Amino acid sequence: MSHNTFGHLFRVTTWGESHGPAIGCVIDGCPPGIRFRMEEIQAELDRRKPGSSRFVTQRREPDTAKILSGVLPDESDDGTLVTTGTPIAMEIENVDQRSKDYGDIAKQYRPGHADFTYDVKYGLRDYRGGGRSSARETATRVAAGALARKIVPGLTVRGAIVAIGTEAIDRGNWDWQVVEREDNPFFTPDAASIPRFESYLDELRKAHDSVGALIEIVAEGVPAGLGAPIYGKLDTDIAAGLMSINAVKGVEIGDGFAAARLKGTENADEMRIGDNGEPEFLANHSGGILGGISTGAEIVARFAVKPTSSILTPRRSVDRDGQEIDVVTKGRHDPCVGIRAVPIGEAMVACAIADHYLRHRGQTGRI
Amino acid sequence: MSHNTFGHLFRVTTWGESHGPAIGCVIDGCPPGIRFRMEEIQAELDRRKPGSSRFVTQRREPDTAKILSGVLPDESDDGTLVTTGTPIAMEIENVDQRSKDYGDIAKQYRPGHADFTYDVKYGLRDYRGGGRSSARETATRVAAGALARKIVPGLTVRGAIVAIGTEAIDRGNWDWQVVEREDNPFFTPDAASIPRFESYLDELRKAHDSVGALIEIVAEGVPAGLGAPIYGKLDTDIAAGLMSINAVKGVEIGDGFAAARLKGTENADEMRIGDNGEPEFLANHSGGILGGISTGAEIVARFAVKPTSSILTPRRSVDRDGQEIDVVTKGRHDPCVGIRAVPIGEAMVACAIADHYLRHRGQTGRI
Amino acid sequence: MSHNTFGHLFRVTTWGESHGPAIGCVIDGCPPGIRFRMEEIQAELDRRKPGSSRFVTQRREPDTAKILSGVLPDESDDGTLVTTGTPIAMEIENVDQRSKDYGDIAKQYRPGHADFTYDVKYGLRDYRGGGRSSARETATRVAAGALARKIVPGLTVRGAIVAIGTEAIDRGNWDWQVVEREDNPFFTPDAASIPRFESYLDELRKAHDSVGALIEIVAEGVPAGLGAPIYGKLDTDIAAGLMSINAVKGVEIGDGFAAARLKGTENADEMRIGDNGEPEFLANHSGGILGGISTGAEIVARFAVKPTSSILTPRRSVDRDGQEIDVVTKGRHDPCVGIRAVPIGEAMVACAIADHYLRHRGQTGRI
Amino acid sequence: MSHNTFGHLFRVTTWGESHGPAIGCVIDGCPPGIRFRMEEIQAELDRRKPGSSRFVTQRREPDTAKILSGVLPDESDDGTLVTTGTPIAMEIENVDQRSKDYGDIAKQYRPGHADFTYDVKYGLRDYRGGGRSSARETATRVAAGALARKIVPGLTVRGAIVAIGTEAIDRGNWDWQVVEREDNPFFTPDAASIPRFESYLDELRKAHDSVGALIEIVAEGVPAGLGAPIYGKLDTDIAAGLMSINAVKGVEIGDGFAAARLKGTENADEMRIGDNGEPEFLANHSGGILGGISTGAEIVARFAVKPTSSILTPRRSVDRDGQEIDVVTKGRHDPCVGIRAVPIGEAMVACAIADHYLRHRGQTGRI
Repeated sequence: MSHNTFGHLFRVTTWGESHGPAIGCVIDGCPPGIRFRMEEIQAELDRRKPGSSRFVTQRREPDTAKILSGVLPDESDDGTLVTTGTPIAMEIENVDQRSKDYGDIAKQYRPGHADFTYDVKYGLRDYRGGGRSSARETATRVAAGALARKIVPGLTVRGAIVAIGTEAIDRGNWDWQVVEREDNPFFTPDAASIPRFESYLDELRKAHDSVGALIEIVAEGVPAGLGAPIYGKLDTDIAAGLMSINAVKGVEIGDGFAAARLKGTENADEMRIGDNGEPEFLANHSGGILGGISTGAEIVARFAVKPTSSILTPRRSVDRDGQEIDVVTKGRHDPCVGIRAVPIGEAMVACAIADHYLRHRGQTGRI
Repeated sequence: MSHNTFGHLFRVTTWGESHGPAIGCVIDGCPPGIRFRMEEIQAELDRRKPGSSRFVTQRREPDTAKILSGVLPDESDDGTLVTTGTPIAMEIENVDQRSKDYGDIAKQYRPGHADFTYDVKYGLRDYRGGGRSSARETATRVAAGALARKIVPGLTVRGAIVAIGTEAIDRGNWDWQVVEREDNPFFTPDAASIPRFESYLDELRKAHDSVGALIEIVAEGVPAGLGAPIYGKLDTDIAAGLMSINAVKGVEIGDGFAAARLKGTENADEMRIGDNGEPEFLANHSGGILGGISTGAEIVARFAVKPTSSILTPRRSVDRDGQEIDVVTKGRHDPCVGIRAVPIGEAMVACAIADHYLRHRGQTGRI
Repeated sequence: MSHNTFGHLFRVTTWGESHGPAIGCVIDGCPPGIRFRMEEIQAELDRRKPGSSRFVTQRREPDTAKILSGVLPDESDDGTLVTTGTPIAMEIENVDQRSKDYGDIAKQYRPGHADFTYDVKYGLRDYRGGGRSSARETATRVAAGALARKIVPGLTVRGAIVAIGTEAIDRGNWDWQVVEREDNPFFTPDAASIPRFESYLDELRKAHDSVGALIEIVAEGVPAGLGAPIYGKLDTDIAAGLMSINAVKGVEIGDGFAAARLKGTENADEMRIGDNGEPEFLANHSGGILGGISTGAEIVARFAVKPTSSILTPRRSVDRDGQEIDVVTKGRHDPCVGIRAVPIGEAMVACAIADHYLRHRGQTGRI
Repeated sequence: MSHNTFGHLFRVTTWGESHGPAIGCVIDGCPPGIRFRMEEIQAELDRRKPGSSRFVTQRREPDTAKILSGVLPDESDDGTLVTTGTPIAMEIENVDQRSKDYGDIAKQYRPGHADFTYDVKYGLRDYRGGGRSSARETATRVAAGALARKIVPGLTVRGAIVAIGTEAIDRGNWDWQVVEREDNPFFTPDAASIPRFESYLDELRKAHDSVGALIEIVAEGVPAGLGAPIYGKLDTDIAAGLMSINAVKGVEIGDGFAAARLKGTENADEMRIGDNGEPEFLANHSGGILGGISTGAEIVARFAVKPTSSILTPRRSVDRDGQEIDVVTKGRHDPCVGIRAVPIGEAMVACAIADHYLRHRGQTGRI
């Protein structure tokens, strides 16, 4: 990964700050002939959109994506677009910046934020909110991911919250349909967890605090053979993609950290010939990837998001001028940024898989 | 990351299979004028070398690195070499292949190995042992890492085992000097854990089993400002580097997965002005990286290694011809591949830091 | 170079079709703290702008660039902008598309155009004009080049026409000031050539024909040491940049093709110690680059542009349905696209130099 | 192109200096299942090999390539190798270095050489001959090109000298079979030119001089559709590849620089439906590439090589210590390095085509 671009054949470059006029991305290398509708892109963006419940930031951003290049109306003339193979530029206007909310923090180094490090690195920074390091950037990834999903035939990438702070779901209740329910503001797959999460987060908000979260992404329909040896491993690129999301501090594949505690007899997924005459795995500790290459089983990745650093409880810090200060971060912030990270994680996994699908087809012609 | 190369300015390309004549790497973009001795490279390789205790593979590989390009003897003529700025090719002969040990598994898909996935991807594979997916490849990274350490003035990168299977160290006993002690075959920083690990692993070996491990890497002396926004984050590249190591299933930075359970008041590292008049952090939950950019504090990363898949206990599997089989993997394998992963993890972190040091200098000129 | 991106540290990605809503670019890796005014970007764009004389296309495009990210007003508050180090997105609206002009050629393969090859490659293409292959894309390069010029202290990059078709300038009359004169629509440095070019092109237009051109780019103030061995040669990247401009069929450095006819005694630039005590070259056959690395002398590159393929004279061709047809390309086309290629060539050379300036600083720290 | 690597999916990284122990390359991304014999690689290397006639350097290098990874013997067991899809490392020993020949020039800046620029860039250089900038590096490209030729079914890439200094061939005599004739040390396709070139070069050698050359490369069997818009144009990558060869000062495609003097009515290749019912071109001014994408016609590229800079005639120069000196370059040098550039040019064109073949298959799946 390099600067603001990821991917090798399916390449996404993003740009924009939270308080500039717009954010956007350029998707380069998308195959020609992919058909989609703007509603499909928008539906993904709406899942990440702020302001949808009291548990996420109250910033009011419609997050409407425009496409400026790389597509044509298809012959049906019903609004379906078709990719031409040239770069696809997408843009999302910043509507509700309210940059005066941030006026008093232009010189402050908010603890847990990138204010200090951007200043050290660049000698200056966009003081109007998080600038480039704002989670707002991730909207463009979600838009790119919506296209990536279309590239691999039969691919489904879904995500869910598996824990918010110290409250975990009951995996026995897992139901993907629950995740998308209107009355579920948490992307949890466990309906019983909804009231628990509600009261937990309400308490945290009252305490002027925030909390982290754990997200799981599952990709089904990934053909076996995607990935590349050693440094272009599929899991390497998934891990890099997830780790590049703001506030992510850990990534794991399959059994992940739990695998460190397993024995060889417990961990290696045994194989048999399935009813269809094809090899099949009797378990999926590996999370669908062996030696960096997809096995055909579900790809399972999890990532940990730290608590929102912007909180109303005063924290000790310093400012640009070397003064010691107390920082209280007003503004409209998610009490748990991990919640809205679910569609972002899906997008990054979808992009990594789409990229490796094209790379595999390129190198081997076997797909 | 792309295929068999990583890094953007400090680029490492590796090649070679476990049972071919040699393995090697090409380091491109190394600054000119870096002085080192072959003994320094060799010392790092010796730390990863097989056969050094009964807890690692008994394969006898001297792992002697040769340098074929990109260096000159320096003026001192005492064996010190100096880099010229051109690509540095290093090569390590495979001495003790014993490929007949593997003859019976040429068609078998060993559970937990990449045999199946390489076959699906490429239509054929190097059946003589793990081929490209063998951990042997990692020797070349260690050699590259030994050079990377030289690039950033004042940089120290050290690693340690923090758990083997269900046995964890006592962090209260942490002593870096213990890690390098001759009678410590585990890279553990807790002297008291040595006998515990010994008996634990002896039992596992008798039971024809293996186990995973957890490794921690700490980098000191990293200047603040290294990294790049969004996709070229320092933590993204560290995560990618560690995840690209064989058998790694999880990576975390700073508090990592534990951060998902923390509150904002607990997690964000507060700041004050230190005795030297410079900003300093009062804690290091972030693991030395904020917004993808180094803070100047210690960089802390951990990664989880799954148990060795090659075990003497029979596992159910299938072969290339679609036959159901039982696989027993003979050969000489580490009961816990995680142990020798310590110097490999150090090398990957050192390479990521060196690359970002050069990138930061290139873009900003501020170092 | 990869798809729609060029550069390694100073990276430019462009997007957009001639008849979509806009075209644009994202500049990634620009150093922070570069100060500039929009007027400076605009001045470069105006030099390439269509409609400025009867010798270029009459399409009326204001080509006004907007910047959407990566900059802040500087402290002077006089309109000066300063780069922040994050990606700079620039956008230019397409105002005067008139896409119905092109309606009848949606299925035609215009000789000399990319219609056939895009169709073969992608299975479809943007039939509204040249789409992605339109010279309109080059406006975004000019905008990027305007910034690139600011990165290397003391750098000047200038270009001039040296021949239009069979009419060459008299190099003895070379005067850089003539190039920018209001009454010089040709970027010629030879005032005496202006009336010659005028009558030559007027005749061609009347004959419903077009013609090629030869352009020379000269970069002064390039520090010695920029470039990289072998594949990252400065001349390689300049050649690639120039060859990537639409309609360019040849590129040369220094004496270029003429060097093939020279003897070694004539070609190698001898050296002496100059009045300032530094080594200096007594000639510049090399065009300022030896072994891929800048010598400190002027960098001189030339490139050949083929005649505009869109002409009013009927040409034999075929269409998508396999019918043989005669094609007459109406629309508003430059009789000599090479003229407006001058600022584009400058931009590509400036970008290559800026990129190598940052790369050199990154790898060696010697600047 | 970046540092010492070229290609996007078919990537070649080279290393090594003329007077180190060996030179080599790593080919990453080669498709699996490509069958070849070492004799085929060697045959290409032998065409470039020094010492084969009195018109090339008398250095005696067998240039025997070894392959260290990425291949297996195929099932036929007759010496045929098959690629496995993993990186292919090739190595060529430096046998006849005679580095004492160069002892007296360790501090000298040879005119026309990279001695001065390497010193300025890196602060030191390999003083034992040309080091990294020696044409010896190109042997590794020829080896890589031999494999690249195998990737595109039906591809033929051939090259020929079209002029040595002021002596040009008669294109009317063009016969590809002449190029490979044993008694033709010049790669000329015009048998009648052989004695002319002989006497011309003999005179130059006697005069202690050298001369440049012009080479033409023709690729047949390139499917239409290879290339990518704008910066990943097939001609851009061919131009970059050719320009990256030592001593190359100019590159052109199709009519090249001559196109600058043509009219639109002369230049654009008209089309008709051929006897096979497919579109065909009635001419090939474009050299087989339109809009950066192959048309299916022959790809034609030419490049200009400057005269060998190492000559026995004294040239004025300076040395590292700032002393003015006269340089006479002894050693064993080609009087016309352009001759041996023919197989190198072929290799670079073959690599570019192979890379774009894989990229096209990856992005579009249309091949």
